[in-house]
Amino acid sequence: MPKQVDHRERRETIARALWRVVERRGVTQLTMRVVAREAGISLGQLQHYFASRAAMLSFAMDFASEQTSHRVERGLRELGDRPHPRDVLRLTLAEMLPLHADARATSRMSAAYVLEALHDEVVHEQARRGLVEGRGHVERLVRQAIADGHIDSGRDPATETDLLLALTGFTSLIELGVVRPRDALTAIDVHLDRLFSGNDRSR
Amino acid sequence: MPKQVDHRERRETIARALWRVVERRGVTQLTMRVVAREAGISLGQLQHYFASRAAMLSFAMDFASEQTSHRVERGLRELGDRPHPRDVLRLTLAEMLPLHADARATSRMSAAYVLEALHDEVVHEQARRGLVEGRGHVERLVRQAIADGHIDSGRDPATETDLLLALTGFTSLIELGVVRPRDALTAIDVHLDRLFSGNDRSR
Repeated sequence: MPKQVDHRERRETIARALWRVVERRGVTQLTMRVVAREAGISLGQLQHYFASRAAMLSFAMDFASEQTSHRVERGLRELGDRPHPRDVLRLTLAEMLPLHADARATSRMSAAYVLEALHDEVVHEQARRGLVEGRGHVERLVRQAIADGHIDSGRDPATETDLLLALTGFTSLIELGVVRPRDALTAIDVHLDRLFSGNDRSR
Repeated sequence: MPKQVDHRERRETIARALWRVVERRGVTQLTMRVVAREAGISLGQLQHYFASRAAMLSFAMDFASEQTSHRVERGLRELGDRPHPRDVLRLTLAEMLPLHADARATSRMSAAYVLEALHDEVVHEQARRGLVEGRGHVERLVRQAIADGHIDSGRDPATETDLLLALTGFTSLIELGVVRPRDALTAIDVHLDRLFSGNDRSR
């Protein structure tokens, strides 16, 4: 196996160990020593792959975002050749919520990361960049849906994008059992129905 | 000063010190020793008021929720005798977002608390109960607004409540500088306008 690939694989194995620690024990327990133990390697080996806790956390967050994107892409392929923008947005939003084990792991990773970002400038900048990119992706979908007549042209794309992203607020409501997953999905459907039916409604 | 009051005041002083630690240094730095130092007392004195880190955290969270309620009540008094339910909901949602220093402190406290709840059953139950209560309060406002004809009777109160609470998802978007506070407020206004104008719209 080429060395580069092996290096990447090992970093991904460590990132998954880090997710497990965050998911089961919480970010307060997240030290390089604990992650090394969870990954079944020595602290020295871990330090060979990541120079610092922040570097390890950054890679694990990027990897979590990648995994979320892959899940969305797989879902999109199932929607066929020309998916309706409403379905694309629904899939994108749903995969950001802790509705199944994989999404829960990346969602908890992401929550821990945001908290960490508040006290670490480098993490803050990386987290901000990732979210700005994700926001840009959603806004392009919204603008295209307006251009294609699926969403009323009177809607402000920036505001609609912000409202869609804000729905990730369901995360803690689901995690704490305040809102059931199916009720969160119902609410998201109601929101999307209103967004997409605006142009069909007589006023 | 009566002993009971003094005890309560000292616990509030400690809770505020805990908030400052969470806000400035993050939940990963949150130990009883660090909070004692921030509060300017000894670890032994702190332990006199709180038997454990979890007990201290629980009190600080309850106190944060109380402070948020007080801010909302103060805002409501400014709205006059019979405030419009739209204004009440806007005020309630806005005070849950990190839009000013006090709200930021309680919002960060709350985020840290949710993460802690994922790995501590007692904290989980307390956090869940607090959120269920807050959700019930918002749902009563929505139901009353439907009963009074401010919101279309075709709207499902439970789903509308869930959508309103999910808008607290603006928290991390604001904290990371992805959405500006004023854009979040614009989006909330657009959402509330749609919720309250549904009954006036011809269909």
